[in-house]
Amino acid sequence: MTDYQPLMASIASKARAASRLLAAADDAAKARALTYAAQALRDQSADILAANAIDLAAGTKAGLSPAMLDRLKLDAARVAAMAAAVEQVAVLADPVGHIIDSSTRPNGLQMARIRVPIGVLGIIYESRPNVTADAAALGLRSGNAVILRGGSEAVHSNRAIYAAMLAGIIEAGLPADAVQLMPTQDREMVGLMLRAQGAIDMIIPRGGKSLVARVQDEARVPVLAHLDGINHSYVHKDADPAMAQAIVVNAKMRRTGVCGATETVLIDQDYPAAAELIGALIDAGCEVRADDVLMELDARTVSADADDWDTEYLDSVISARVVSGLDEAMEHIARHGSHHTDAIITDNADAAACFLAEVDSAIVMHNSSTQFADGGEFGLGAEIGIATGRLHARGPVALEGLTTYKWVVRGNGQIRP
Amino acid sequence: MTDYQPLMASIASKARAASRLLAAADDAAKARALTYAAQALRDQSADILAANAIDLAAGTKAGLSPAMLDRLKLDAARVAAMAAAVEQVAVLADPVGHIIDSSTRPNGLQMARIRVPIGVLGIIYESRPNVTADAAALGLRSGNAVILRGGSEAVHSNRAIYAAMLAGIIEAGLPADAVQLMPTQDREMVGLMLRAQGAIDMIIPRGGKSLVARVQDEARVPVLAHLDGINHSYVHKDADPAMAQAIVVNAKMRRTGVCGATETVLIDQDYPAAAELIGALIDAGCEVRADDVLMELDARTVSADADDWDTEYLDSVISARVVSGLDEAMEHIARHGSHHTDAIITDNADAAACFLAEVDSAIVMHNSSTQFADGGEFGLGAEIGIATGRLHARGPVALEGLTTYKWVVRGNGQIRP
Repeated sequence: MTDYQPLMASIASKARAASRLLAAADDAAKARALTYAAQALRDQSADILAANAIDLAAGTKAGLSPAMLDRLKLDAARVAAMAAAVEQVAVLADPVGHIIDSSTRPNGLQMARIRVPIGVLGIIYESRPNVTADAAALGLRSGNAVILRGGSEAVHSNRAIYAAMLAGIIEAGLPADAVQLMPTQDREMVGLMLRAQGAIDMIIPRGGKSLVARVQDEARVPVLAHLDGINHSYVHKDADPAMAQAIVVNAKMRRTGVCGATETVLIDQDYPAAAELIGALIDAGCEVRADDVLMELDARTVSADADDWDTEYLDSVISARVVSGLDEAMEHIARHGSHHTDAIITDNADAAACFLAEVDSAIVMHNSSTQFADGGEFGLGAEIGIATGRLHARGPVALEGLTTYKWVVRGNGQIRP
Repeated sequence: MTDYQPLMASIASKARAASRLLAAADDAAKARALTYAAQALRDQSADILAANAIDLAAGTKAGLSPAMLDRLKLDAARVAAMAAAVEQVAVLADPVGHIIDSSTRPNGLQMARIRVPIGVLGIIYESRPNVTADAAALGLRSGNAVILRGGSEAVHSNRAIYAAMLAGIIEAGLPADAVQLMPTQDREMVGLMLRAQGAIDMIIPRGGKSLVARVQDEARVPVLAHLDGINHSYVHKDADPAMAQAIVVNAKMRRTGVCGATETVLIDQDYPAAAELIGALIDAGCEVRADDVLMELDARTVSADADDWDTEYLDSVISARVVSGLDEAMEHIARHGSHHTDAIITDNADAAACFLAEVDSAIVMHNSSTQFADGGEFGLGAEIGIATGRLHARGPVALEGLTTYKWVVRGNGQIRP
């Protein structure tokens, strides 16, 4: 077996050196690099599509599922969308250098907390080649060096996209090692990235649940991610029925494969329009796995078993149960939720305030669809992902979540008594 | 061997339940609990001193060093100081509920990020019994449940102090499990705490380097700590000699055992008063381990070897070398520093700005002593420790560093198109 440790050390060392230059790089240079990179993506569209054709042919031969092949596939419109996304990141405000707070102590020392890049980010992802451009753009815009490790099934596409990003970086006068793409697909490199404490500052996995689970399980480097999005919409007794029905159907059915989709609806025992709500979900094409009470309301429901309350379907399926009130709803969420996104629908301000204060999730919502769980919808301009960990950054993570701070202390000769 | 997993699970589960109540507890109740606890510490001073006498007798019999016995020892004044420190935490502003930022989206959704407690903190500490009161106070004040695991040599003292803290918590109507002291000193419990992902949200080790190293090495739960404080004072060529000498002597010699002490002085080759600076350090009782150039300046210096640049002496010893200028100083710090606290002394504003921007440490300073690295000196009122990790919180960590945030979204029926 090849010992890849020297290669990993070399990549990490180049990333660290680049990160020091990037931390001092000015805003305009970082923005310019992305503008140039977007243009390079457009200019090199034919190369990118040719590389993608190789991946698609190999994937078809290897028997990848139609869904995987669709995630892998690029066309002119998708390359154009990728370039546009990079340009959108270019015009976001740079968080680096922002003064979080400052004070002057009685002895005259001036204290300030200043935003700085985290340093070196490792991105581990699967078949979607656009992550090569997205992650490089967000990492670079926030002043971080980035090490990319994409899926083997997209290796040619990723290399072609990376070449365009690199052209933009170099043209803007930033260090070539600001973004590095792993030169080998050997899986050992993933393990080395996950154990690179001190060399890589944060790992961000982008992909399916098995990838995220492996990364969270093996990593010694901090990980920014979410494993599950077992999200709840709780229909309180004082919910407006028309609003509740519109929100729950949207929260489940708008796109069933996104992490912000509602997977369980909790319905108050005193909510007057439960049958209509269940019926609307079924009419919209959703399978409703219900408890005994709700099964009485519609013969088209099926019986939920114990596992259903802990299942992220990512499909046209929802689990549904009756709760005795706010407390039981919050207990259900505390026991079965994944701390991602949970919503209450009610016209009762006290119930809403209690739910928003006590439910311990990255995103808590009142009278809106859990499908809004997305950095763009939150006004962040983009997102590197949604985090359900409790430290550093929670919920949708964009540029600010890719920074940390340092304390800058200015004196004029103070010594400590 | 006893299987302590069920005990750990029970403690963690009680802590989580308490943390939910604490997250919703009002500011006044948390402050009141600490005021009551401070009074209980005073009222139970005789019990605490009697318990401490047992620990001291056992420690003497076990042959603990005089330094360890001093850290362990309590007297009436130290108990009074402990109570006063708890009262100081009681009057700090509560970070929980603070709105970090907010916005209204074009579709009317109102987004806000609100400070919330982290959840469950695990504190692992050694011989100083006052950590029992300090850590409980800071954890509780910021709305977190706390699990304390103190050193075996202080077990009786810790139990007596804990009893007083618990009395205050209960008297204020807060949950008794808000702060728990490990009921066994079995070392296996430390391992279980370090691997309690999802049950404990953050581990804070308080103690010597071997404890911190073990915790950082074994923990799967995020750790807030610093291992080393290999801090630098860099005397630039344009430093005022009187200021430089006063700062460097203070930075090294005020208290040599604190993590903010300077361990290496870097002196510009064009700084005109290097001999006086070295002489002042030696006159103050400091051993100076110097490079060849500086050894020429004072016969009382000794020769530094390669290890000296990576050594945290925590003693009256300093390593000293000449650098060719700002760049070499920053390179030395990048290679040998521990990202804790580093200072430049200069009257040159450009050099200072460059140093403050580019040196990658939790605290960077201009014209002041590294011994100011302390939460109290930073105006934070107290500190749970100083962190040299890059994520979540850096430098002195007080109440805000023991919180995270959640997104609160308020709508009036919005569904996502």
